[in-house]
Amino acid sequence: MKKAFTGFCISIFSLSVMAQVAPTPVARPAQGARNAVTSPQILPDNRVIFRLFAPKATAVTLNGDWMATGVNEPLIKNDTGLWTITTVPLKPEFYGYSFTVDGVRALDPSNAQVKRDVVTNSSVLLLPGKESDLYAVNDVPHGTLSKVWYYSATLKLNRQMYVYTPPGYEKSTEKYPVLYLLHGGGGDESQWIILGRSCQIIDNLIAQGKIKPMIVVTPNGNANQAAAPGEAPAAKQQVTNQAPNPNTVTNLYEKSVVEDIIPYIESNYRALSNKENRAIAGLSMGGNATLRITMSYPDKFYYVGVFSSGFFDGSMSDVEKRYLSVLSDPDFNKGKKLFWIGIGVDDFLYQICKSSRELLDKYKITYQYVETDGAHTWFNWRKYLAIYTPLLFK
Amino acid sequence: MKKAFTGFCISIFSLSVMAQVAPTPVARPAQGARNAVTSPQILPDNRVIFRLFAPKATAVTLNGDWMATGVNEPLIKNDTGLWTITTVPLKPEFYGYSFTVDGVRALDPSNAQVKRDVVTNSSVLLLPGKESDLYAVNDVPHGTLSKVWYYSATLKLNRQMYVYTPPGYEKSTEKYPVLYLLHGGGGDESQWIILGRSCQIIDNLIAQGKIKPMIVVTPNGNANQAAAPGEAPAAKQQVTNQAPNPNTVTNLYEKSVVEDIIPYIESNYRALSNKENRAIAGLSMGGNATLRITMSYPDKFYYVGVFSSGFFDGSMSDVEKRYLSVLSDPDFNKGKKLFWIGIGVDDFLYQICKSSRELLDKYKITYQYVETDGAHTWFNWRKYLAIYTPLLFK
Repeated sequence: MKKAFTGFCISIFSLSVMAQVAPTPVARPAQGARNAVTSPQILPDNRVIFRLFAPKATAVTLNGDWMATGVNEPLIKNDTGLWTITTVPLKPEFYGYSFTVDGVRALDPSNAQVKRDVVTNSSVLLLPGKESDLYAVNDVPHGTLSKVWYYSATLKLNRQMYVYTPPGYEKSTEKYPVLYLLHGGGGDESQWIILGRSCQIIDNLIAQGKIKPMIVVTPNGNANQAAAPGEAPAAKQQVTNQAPNPNTVTNLYEKSVVEDIIPYIESNYRALSNKENRAIAGLSMGGNATLRITMSYPDKFYYVGVFSSGFFDGSMSDVEKRYLSVLSDPDFNKGKKLFWIGIGVDDFLYQICKSSRELLDKYKITYQYVETDGAHTWFNWRKYLAIYTPLLFK
Repeated sequence: MKKAFTGFCISIFSLSVMAQVAPTPVARPAQGARNAVTSPQILPDNRVIFRLFAPKATAVTLNGDWMATGVNEPLIKNDTGLWTITTVPLKPEFYGYSFTVDGVRALDPSNAQVKRDVVTNSSVLLLPGKESDLYAVNDVPHGTLSKVWYYSATLKLNRQMYVYTPPGYEKSTEKYPVLYLLHGGGGDESQWIILGRSCQIIDNLIAQGKIKPMIVVTPNGNANQAAAPGEAPAAKQQVTNQAPNPNTVTNLYEKSVVEDIIPYIESNYRALSNKENRAIAGLSMGGNATLRITMSYPDKFYYVGVFSSGFFDGSMSDVEKRYLSVLSDPDFNKGKKLFWIGIGVDDFLYQICKSSRELLDKYKITYQYVETDGAHTWFNWRKYLAIYTPLLFK
């Protein structure tokens, strides 16, 4: 009888679950007092109250993406056993947070929304406001997001990717340009979707008339992985001979993007199939992959975006030697409409990015460079996506 | 610098995250000792060891879907602060579980996979074996799962649903039959996908040649909701005048299935559009909706499946009065190829289901009845989907 309440009773006896909208999720009545709190609660000045009912706990702390590394702020317990903390006013953003209860990480039981970053789950707080408006699900036309399996002959693996088609795709006969969007190390095909809010950003920018309707393809960047954790056949989750170590130059994943994924997209979707209508971008490990692809297949993409990255396959002189013929090709610049590089001043890859730009400078390769504040974070990668995509296909 | 490690370092300094396959997820090195445990670990005899590193906690318990309601089994702490529990041998199944740490629910930090049931998240344990094989992602061709937005003129709302198209759909010119699959109370369009493992069940049954390739549509059954928590515009998450209270007979949701969703699917997908190629099924609240739709639109579906439900819109004599003309239609049986009803003997709706069957019996409406063990649980609903779908479109 354990699950007797999940399918039926709630809707009969209470409609309150229907109101479950972060950041004010409503308690599930069947769970009793533990959840009968509101958390998080956003105050008019953007301070946020977090609450946890934990009468038996001796120490509860909060960690949120807005805090500095390693910081855990204590909650205060009242005499009913309710622990509370109120933050300073926070910037509107898409945040993750968690509690630590007597030393153990715990998600907020009052908040149904969870996001996964690599192998760590957090509760979700989308603090609404001007700065986060592109990350919100707004009342605009929405594209369709599909989980698609394709065969990679390069990797000899059936693999999963996400394909976003823009609003109106189904009813149209038009062909669309395509952005291939690569995630960072440890991530998978879901990372741009969950953490990057890519569907929301693209939906919103299309609705604002700031970008052309486009197909967005987010593959899995681990050459040895069929799909995200739990989404692949157990036997295919790891294929040992194809480790995606960025320090080697197997280039198998990069090859698969160009030789398996592009043909799949261009034969299964109404995708424009010329270089002028193909863009690529990637963050961190995906930025390095973007650079590799750009150097290995210089005629494939007219638009290239490198987010918080640089060449990191060995020393810069190794890189120079490896890609010399492309770097010194006098027609390289003509083959690109946009070569965009963005990084935050506090990014731990800042120096690698700088050395990479110096290498490009040496060969008079032109690029747009955007330096922002911030570090190696999704705060920046979402921002870069929103800066980069309006420059495409124009 | 908080997120410095998530995009890059892991893949450079360690490939261990690539091995993150439940039920043996691998620690994220940047998180330190807290996660440096293996949990859950499945033993050869299907006992399962759960581990949690919590040196500061004074009591840790485990609750899993295989346990009776309200049971919490204690973990034992060793002198390093590692808490451990070993279960009895478990039946291969798709389970959720959680810890309680000093009174607070906590997911397993060593397990990346989480599932949401209404507003409660749990860690996932898919215990492999014969009984759960249909629920696993196997090395078979996979269909495509899409999140699709459509306009419901009935509900005056843009809404989200999932549409599964079978393997081969993209490359085929064939049209396919369609199953409309409705969730239970408190759920949303993701419930059959996450908890019902509908994509895995359909993929696997198609691969085994046991069912015809079909399109499976899983809408959101809350007439006042645009989409699952966090997936709808905040302003549209609740439209107050259209409460989905099954005790009223507004029938707005049911109308929207027939008058908005069916036309959308049949005009946007290669769907066979005759009654003989349309099936419907639902669990609990969705089973009641299936019955309502069957009585209100008797000519729409050739196949009807009612999982763990019955008529629960008022008393059985109210129901009889309301649907008298359809119940007493001598051609009712000819209009259906299959009317399937399944329920577990311990289901708290068992009596409602029985009274509903007696009403059908009174009017000589024929149906197939399957009584299983078990209660009002996903254990049964996954099983019923696997029994029902092989009977369709044949």
